[in-house]
Formats: sequence, structure tokens, C-alpha cells
Amino acid sequence: MTPEPRDEERADAVELLALVAALEDHAFVRFAADAVNAPDAHQRLTRSRMAALAVARRDRVLDRLGELDGDPVAQVDRFDRVLDDFDTRTEPATWAERLLRGYVGCGVSDDFCRLAAWGVDAQSRDLVLDVLDDADHVEAAVAALSGACADDAALSSRLALWGRRVVGESLQTVSRLLSSRPGLARVAARGLLAIASSGTGDTKARPGDAAPDAPQPASVLNQLTVEHTRRMSKLSLTA
Amino acid sequence: MTPEPRDEERADAVELLALVAALEDHAFVRFAADAVNAPDAHQRLTRSRMAALAVARRDRVLDRLGELDGDPVAQVDRFDRVLDDFDTRTEPATWAERLLRGYVGCGVSDDFCRLAAWGVDAQSRDLVLDVLDDADHVEAAVAALSGACADDAALSSRLALWGRRVVGESLQTVSRLLSSRPGLARVAARGLLAIASSGTGDTKARPGDAAPDAPQPASVLNQLTVEHTRRMSKLSLTA
Repeated sequence: MTPEPRDEERADAVELLALVAALEDHAFVRFAADAVNAPDAHQRLTRSRMAALAVARRDRVLDRLGELDGDPVAQVDRFDRVLDDFDTRTEPATWAERLLRGYVGCGVSDDFCRLAAWGVDAQSRDLVLDVLDDADHVEAAVAALSGACADDAALSSRLALWGRRVVGESLQTVSRLLSSRPGLARVAARGLLAIASSGTGDTKARPGDAAPDAPQPASVLNQLTVEHTRRMSKLSLTA
Repeated sequence: MTPEPRDEERADAVELLALVAALEDHAFVRFAADAVNAPDAHQRLTRSRMAALAVARRDRVLDRLGELDGDPVAQVDRFDRVLDDFDTRTEPATWAERLLRGYVGCGVSDDFCRLAAWGVDAQSRDLVLDVLDDADHVEAAVAALSGACADDAALSSRLALWGRRVVGESLQTVSRLLSSRPGLARVAARGLLAIASSGTGDTKARPGDAAPDAPQPASVLNQLTVEHTRRMSKLSLTA
């Protein structure tokens, strides 16, 4: 038996788990919209499967949330509108823009949640890392976008610009979360310390003990930007 | 090992399986739209889970379709627009109308597919009956609608009217399918014979041997109307 977290630690874990569940719920809605807008039947089926997987991921997180809080659905619902601004400002005009928005936006939000996971109890952390370890949709997006960009310099350049816009909005969303949700700011700071002290600079790596100085929100955004640059280079697009 | 069906039987089974898969694909889209339009977080989560289950059901049917046909996705895609007219003519104005549309519309289409399932090879039949045996979403709709109608005679009367409109459009959709798809008309006729000869008049019952006279499309619609009337009585609504 893993010991249950103390009260403040528990409240912070609830905050992070609720965010992860809300993001997966949003991913479901987005994948479902992708399915409706897909250019052919194969991609429609693929996106609908991703939507179903997002529901399964969300429900795993909801189960853990229910162990820590009496009303997990209400906790998730508090984050219901968290991506409204992002969505409004990044309405895609083409299928490629839609794919890239998902790749970049989910990339940033997943990285943030993985980073913050290192600031909560071990059981919640392991769950979040495991839930976010599903690389299928990332690989599907990479394959589709790389193929489309391979022989089309104009498209590559347009998508590089689009990626910068999407990552800008993504980082602003994280920044708003950090300033409006002290619990999230705390777990992100703890998580970043843990990762920094591990010396890998990789949110997917297992860190060692935490370093003594608390990092600023800017450090969180820097870390996310580093990951984003790596991600864009997989597409051979300039971040 | 169950023997594989002969060529014509195989083509008819492909036709039915493709329809069932297309209807489940459509159910996914509809449940996802329900989730976005749900009045509260609990119903949003419930509808998204139904969407995920529809994907799983569709993919089970796709697997069988792939055993019988080299390009199952293309077969499903042929039914891509099968519910467009139905959707256009039954746009719900309220959450209750949305629930009732699903209850009535899926009721009719599931009944049709169950009936037709008795006209295809045993393995495909058993799969279709098993896939459509998921009563969860029916019970959820009955519970929600019965609760809403219990003390509201005006709502009950409005919904009874709405149910008649939805069932009318549903039966017209079936009628169009029967006249435009000879393969579906054949399996439906065979299925109805099998059910009639079993003497139960229930598409969920296991029939005995088929009777000698082929039924007309009108008999299929009559059978679906009988099932619809039973379904509406569960809600204490006049069919």
C-alpha cells in the first residue's frame, strides 16, 4: 500500500488530476470534431479511436481523483472552460493546421502535466505519467504532417508559422493557469525542481532528489519551449 | 470452425455489416455531439462514454467485415450519408428531444439490423445480435426521459408528438434503404421469415426454421412499428 498524501499535498494532487482529466475530456471533443472533419474514411476512423482512447484515459484519472476527493466530476468541471480562449484563437483553416494544432497544443499541455506530475504523490504521479505515455496520436500526426510537408516548401513554411502561433497560445494558457491556480503553480514548481535536479532536462525522465531553490513560472515556460522545439524538429519545421 | 458463407450470402452479409458499422460510426458522432450539448458534467461524461462504446462496437463489426471483404472501410463509407436526411429533418430543439431522437431512432435502426441479422450467416448474425445487445444507453435514456415526463403533462404530450415525427423519419429511412439496396432487402426478408416462423414476433428472440413465403417491405416496417410502440410505452408515451 502506498501511503495516502497529506491534506495540502492531496489538494494539490486533486488540482493536477482534475486538470489532466479536463484536458483528456477536451481531447475527446477535439478528436471527435477531427473525425467529423477528416478528409477520408480511414482518417475519420482513426480519429474516432483516438477520441475513445481519450475517454479511457480521462476515466482512469477520474478514478484516482475519486480516491482523493468526494466529488471528482465537480473538480474536473472547474476546468471545463480552460481551453476556450485557446480554441477560439487557434481555429484551424485546413486539415494540416488542425493536425498541427493538436500536435503542438497537446504536446505543450502533456509536457506541463508530466512536469507537474513530479510535484504530487507517487501514486498520482505514476498514473499521470502512464496515462500521458500514449504516443500513438503523436506518431500519427508526425507521419501525416511529415508526408504532407516533404515536397511542399510553401506548406512547410505556412505550417511553421502556424506552429509558432499555436505554441504561443499554448504557453499563454499555461501562464494563465499558473497565475490563477496557486495549487498548480506549486506542483509545477516542485516538479521542475525534481526534474532539474535529475539533470536530464527531460520531463519524461525519472528525476532524483529536488534541488533547494524554487523555480519561477518563467522556468516552467522555458522548459516547455525546449520540449516544443524538439517536437517541431521531428517534423523538420522551425519552432 | 464455422463454414464461411457462399458468395451471394457473403455479399449480403457484407451489406448488412457495413450498415451496422456505419450506424455505430454515426452513433459515435451523435453521442459526441450530445456530450458537447449536455446540460451538466455528469451527462457530458456519460455521453462521451457511450461515444467510446460505439467506436468499440463499430470496430468489432469492422473486424468481421474485413474477414468477408478486402476493403471493409470502403464498404462502410458507402453508407456514410445514410442518416443525413434523417438528421436534417429531426434537429432537436431541447435536450429531451435530443435524448428521445436517439432512443427512437437507434431503436428503429437497431431493430432493423437485428431483424436483418437473421438473414445472414450464423457468425455474422451472432456478432450483430451481440453488438446490438448493449442496453445501457437505452436504459439511460428511459431513466432521464421518464423522470422529466413524470410530473409534466405538457412535456409528455410534446415529446409524444416529437417521437411520432422521429419514428416517421426513421421508418422512411429504412424504407429508402430497402428500395435502394437489394442486398439489404433480401436479408431483411429472410430475417423476417425466420422471426415470423419462430412465432414470437420479437427480433431479439431466436427463431426456428424459415416459413416458405417471402414477406414484403411493408411487413418489415410493420414489425419495426410494433417494436417502436413497445418502446414508447416504456416511457408512458403514446406512440
